[in-house]
Amino acid sequence: MAEAKVEFEVPADSVVVTCTAPVNIAVIKYWGKRDEKRILPVNSSLSGTIDQGSMRSMTTIIASKSFEKDEMSLNGKPENIGGSKRLNAVLNELRKRAEDFVDSETGSVLIKKEDWPQYKLKIISENNFPTAAGLASSASGFACFTSCLAALYGFKEQFPGELTTIARQGSGSACRSLYGGWVKWVKGERDDGLDSIAVQVADENHWPEMRVLILVAHSGAKEVPSTSGMETSVQTSLLLKHRAEAIVEGRMQGMEDAIIRKDFAKFAEITMKDSNQFHAVCLDTYPPIFYLNQTSKKIIHIIHQLNDLAAKAGKPPVAAYTYDAGPNAVIYTLQENLQPLLNLFSKLYRPADASEAATWITDPMNLVKTDGESLAQVDPEWATLAGEPASGERVYNVIVSKVGPGPKIVRKEHSFQK
Amino acid sequence: MAEAKVEFEVPADSVVVTCTAPVNIAVIKYWGKRDEKRILPVNSSLSGTIDQGSMRSMTTIIASKSFEKDEMSLNGKPENIGGSKRLNAVLNELRKRAEDFVDSETGSVLIKKEDWPQYKLKIISENNFPTAAGLASSASGFACFTSCLAALYGFKEQFPGELTTIARQGSGSACRSLYGGWVKWVKGERDDGLDSIAVQVADENHWPEMRVLILVAHSGAKEVPSTSGMETSVQTSLLLKHRAEAIVEGRMQGMEDAIIRKDFAKFAEITMKDSNQFHAVCLDTYPPIFYLNQTSKKIIHIIHQLNDLAAKAGKPPVAAYTYDAGPNAVIYTLQENLQPLLNLFSKLYRPADASEAATWITDPMNLVKTDGESLAQVDPEWATLAGEPASGERVYNVIVSKVGPGPKIVRKEHSFQK
Repeated sequence: MAEAKVEFEVPADSVVVTCTAPVNIAVIKYWGKRDEKRILPVNSSLSGTIDQGSMRSMTTIIASKSFEKDEMSLNGKPENIGGSKRLNAVLNELRKRAEDFVDSETGSVLIKKEDWPQYKLKIISENNFPTAAGLASSASGFACFTSCLAALYGFKEQFPGELTTIARQGSGSACRSLYGGWVKWVKGERDDGLDSIAVQVADENHWPEMRVLILVAHSGAKEVPSTSGMETSVQTSLLLKHRAEAIVEGRMQGMEDAIIRKDFAKFAEITMKDSNQFHAVCLDTYPPIFYLNQTSKKIIHIIHQLNDLAAKAGKPPVAAYTYDAGPNAVIYTLQENLQPLLNLFSKLYRPADASEAATWITDPMNLVKTDGESLAQVDPEWATLAGEPASGERVYNVIVSKVGPGPKIVRKEHSFQK
Repeated sequence: MAEAKVEFEVPADSVVVTCTAPVNIAVIKYWGKRDEKRILPVNSSLSGTIDQGSMRSMTTIIASKSFEKDEMSLNGKPENIGGSKRLNAVLNELRKRAEDFVDSETGSVLIKKEDWPQYKLKIISENNFPTAAGLASSASGFACFTSCLAALYGFKEQFPGELTTIARQGSGSACRSLYGGWVKWVKGERDDGLDSIAVQVADENHWPEMRVLILVAHSGAKEVPSTSGMETSVQTSLLLKHRAEAIVEGRMQGMEDAIIRKDFAKFAEITMKDSNQFHAVCLDTYPPIFYLNQTSKKIIHIIHQLNDLAAKAGKPPVAAYTYDAGPNAVIYTLQENLQPLLNLFSKLYRPADASEAATWITDPMNLVKTDGESLAQVDPEWATLAGEPASGERVYNVIVSKVGPGPKIVRKEHSFQK
């Protein structure tokens, strides 16, 4: 996917930093805060970082004395920074910790730390995936915003993971997008949240066969936003309380162990059980919250059928599904099963219309073959098990990806005279 | 609904007993056994008994020396008694406790208790509601079978509720169909199950305004049977364990209290929360079980909308939904809201086709007006809140009922010479 390089007007004596940051997909779900302001969770969580080759947020920050005030745009639309407690929290935390800005070539100080207050910011943020697809953009967006500010201000961590405690105040799961590979967010015990940090469990090279297939089943329908949904769950669901207190820690250990040992069977079982339990908690919320639709349920059923078939043949499971606060299926699978799975779902859901079919699969990293002949190679036993889609079921498009690295600084320049 | 009286050929020197028994709809759900053989539940449950004027099971038993063996038919089809552990369990329990059969007019003993083994049974069972509708018939069926045998054999309870411990061995929830009104099934603690009995909380005259609306959303689709579903839940759902151990007893007390005080707001809240939690446990089962479909979810949403509107006006809730192991909505409401609710759901789901529309509502007890003019009186605010059904949503028919009495012996005769 060629990136059109966006050019910004950079005033003289200014600094510009551009960062990209990834989406992450939890395999142990975060649902519920014990502290709304500091965004401290009721339980720990764990996710895979999705390669930025398929999806990413990008933020550019220009700092200049010539700007009258801080300004921000998100996907081309102005965003009111002052009106957002969360943007302000992250911005203020990093601003007060700003260091001297040093020319990387000459070593000379261009902006002294005490002069930063004179520099206002122009912040340009955008995601290269459609918001309407129901893919959570707040994690990658706040991870990107945090990383970009940290690069600008030369943020120095006083303890490992400190930056994740700042990203967390923008959006809880953003803290997990600050690292690549497999990342856990340790819930912590302290009231001030300083021990509620993200920690990398393994990097993106640890389990190179891991692949991700995102089946977009979101129709643009209005859903309960996760922030208010989890707040209602904390207030009303007796099962969430039990999950947080008695179930998740054991699963965290099991999942970490499965990842370290690359045990896909164990990984898949915990992933699916935890997704189901999260949606069970949503149903136990009052009034109940439903995120899964008919298509989601069909895909769950298909994955179980395929895994049962594999189990009968003495093989490990084919795939694991997981669902966030929406109907999109995220499927973790190993390289060997990626193409067969894509072919099966193409048979079921790829539109008949040629122009729609042509853009139905997004595979910027060329992880699969997407020509008609390759897609037509569907395992007949799988096809029989999957059956036909019922009316109303629809997968709008498919994104093929893998586990990838954390945020990247792609530009850090200044326009001071040399 | 005129009952076509079925005539049976009764041989000479025989006894014939006919019983009817009601369906019950739980407001605190039974899901999970701690003992599969004795059918002892992991938690207590509580239900309303549905008036037999709308639905009932009917069983006729003829006992005669002229029959070579026990025989049974269910809805006109032969049933293998010997092949059913559950039928056998109930039959054997009652048979071994048989008393003398006495002519009610003359007082003379027609069959001595020691002679019963010579009398084989012809058992004819039928339900007057379609099995395909997905309405559980095992509770009413086994309550009827148990009541009929108890009447035939002159069963004498050695402790209150003993008969319910026998019905329970046919089908767990059958024990609650042995009484009218509001009935709790106390889970008990003993291994032999003798304290796992059904107890009437209040009779059918206690809360005369209570009404029941059953919206049949079942499409005949194959679902996970409740027996195997709850077994999988017990084995795999950590949330079920917590529900049974820590949540249900409090809800039982709250529900009993709500019923005794006729507090509809409290009744409704516990009913809806417990239905949701039961379905949450199904989702937490591995593989997950889904009983609710799109229509079920829409009806849940509508009821919450109507209740919120009532709350804003300082009024008690309009209705409470509850769902068993299938997508049919059972709505408990008070008389004053019955017609308005029926009108709203008619607007949304009554078929346009005149002949289908004519049979869409089943109201044998004439609890509502079903002419087109009456049904058209839809509260405009309610109509706006409810919106329009999405494609794929369908209510196949509606049954209007109320809380009613327990099993009835409708015939007990003999053909011995006087």
